[in-house]
Amino acid sequence: MPRTVFYVSDSTGITARTLGQSLLAQFEGLDLEHVTVPFVADAAAVRELVARIDHTGRQQGVQPLVFSTLVDSELRRLLATSSGCLLDILGVFRASLEQVLGVAATDQVGGARPRASDASYQQRIDAVHFALDNDDGARLSQYGMADVILVGVSRCGKTPTCLYLALQFGLFAANYPLTEEDLGSLKLPRALEPFHAKLFGLTIEPERLTAIRQARRPGSKYASARQCSLEVTEAEALFRQQRLPSVDTTELSIEEISVRIIERLGDRRGGAGLSHGR
Amino acid sequence: MPRTVFYVSDSTGITARTLGQSLLAQFEGLDLEHVTVPFVADAAAVRELVARIDHTGRQQGVQPLVFSTLVDSELRRLLATSSGCLLDILGVFRASLEQVLGVAATDQVGGARPRASDASYQQRIDAVHFALDNDDGARLSQYGMADVILVGVSRCGKTPTCLYLALQFGLFAANYPLTEEDLGSLKLPRALEPFHAKLFGLTIEPERLTAIRQARRPGSKYASARQCSLEVTEAEALFRQQRLPSVDTTELSIEEISVRIIERLGDRRGGAGLSHGR
Repeated sequence: MPRTVFYVSDSTGITARTLGQSLLAQFEGLDLEHVTVPFVADAAAVRELVARIDHTGRQQGVQPLVFSTLVDSELRRLLATSSGCLLDILGVFRASLEQVLGVAATDQVGGARPRASDASYQQRIDAVHFALDNDDGARLSQYGMADVILVGVSRCGKTPTCLYLALQFGLFAANYPLTEEDLGSLKLPRALEPFHAKLFGLTIEPERLTAIRQARRPGSKYASARQCSLEVTEAEALFRQQRLPSVDTTELSIEEISVRIIERLGDRRGGAGLSHGR
Repeated sequence: MPRTVFYVSDSTGITARTLGQSLLAQFEGLDLEHVTVPFVADAAAVRELVARIDHTGRQQGVQPLVFSTLVDSELRRLLATSSGCLLDILGVFRASLEQVLGVAATDQVGGARPRASDASYQQRIDAVHFALDNDDGARLSQYGMADVILVGVSRCGKTPTCLYLALQFGLFAANYPLTEEDLGSLKLPRALEPFHAKLFGLTIEPERLTAIRQARRPGSKYASARQCSLEVTEAEALFRQQRLPSVDTTELSIEEISVRIIERLGDRRGGAGLSHGR
């Protein structure tokens, strides 16, 4: 019988779940079932949840875990009446923060929630549309508006990374696919020449690229080990020759690739790093 | 002089920052500067960081805040030697979890980190490409593979939501734009008829839609208040007539829209909700 883990939030529950799973990853051999309970907004919803937690615990014969990012004190107090093991993520740091900051915490829900009407939120949406419009070198004329232009061979991770940079950080990210015509000369494609400072190379191990391309176009020249190896070798030579910063995406998630790009952008812009988002 | 908040992580720092900002949103009138320090991997990096925190605190004359999701016990111990106020997000719950679970925590870094080689990670990437291939009704033939098909008028939020569902949850999300030809009859477009159970309507207040479209094509009929109002009224009538679940995106972020869609999908699939991601 698994043990149930509840992730409880007055918003989406994504933070509660991410954090809870990071914590639980430190314990081996657990049999867990994960349940996210988002948008818990009032006492009635918490009471219903408490009944559900208690029922689950009785059925399973083990104490459920309850990760919560509820903000409201009254709702947190109510949730604490369940028989689950409550890990009150916001509550636990409130007292220390109140002491250091010398200010009392409010119960304002959703203060850090992205608001559809915020400028920074609108920028993320605009950035998504920019990434789509500028995917695969579609509109070279808009490169001037880009914060960063990712350069690499087909299927090395450019598109998902551009979209993540847009959705998470509101960065205007374009990408340029290196094709056979661009490779071999060690020169930048002409469309990229004016934008050297915005270029960022993505590379990947040829074996991994072959596997990805085979899944897409099995048996094609495009997906052959020889072609993949050739393209990667020449792309990497181009990055070295042109002194482009680059990152190997083989073992990295898009989150990690994105944060490494932002770090390097920060270096080139004078060390701002992730300080300002954009 | 602002007070600096450091977000420290052995991974991207995104969780530390999201959580820290949720916490700090409960305090009003603060003058803060935010610095994310990702990929802190060894003792040398922590020592350098400790020196930076101490220097910042002396310069500002106030104690910096340090939100950390470091996993390794030795690195956490080192970080605690800084003069900053340490909010050790993983550390604080380790003891309670060890007690409840009856297992000692390991120092395994990145256990919950998305791995580029994981099937679930590859599914997120595949889902991004699926969302791109099926944006704006581009390939009606692939609707059979979709987990969900978002339906709505142009610029009501379909595309960014599809991409978020793909990137965050690995869901295969397609979308179908309702145009004038589709509206007025209260009938589903023929391409959508076989997929009733996958359809989800997005709607938006006409005033907000007008503003979004005006920014894109100022002065056009497409962006006129009259046109926007007409399209939204008819799209909402279609959703009612066809009993499609729908959500008003006007005041919601893509995170919130996405989680509401997943909740409703769960209802239709028998209450699984967010339990299983996909």
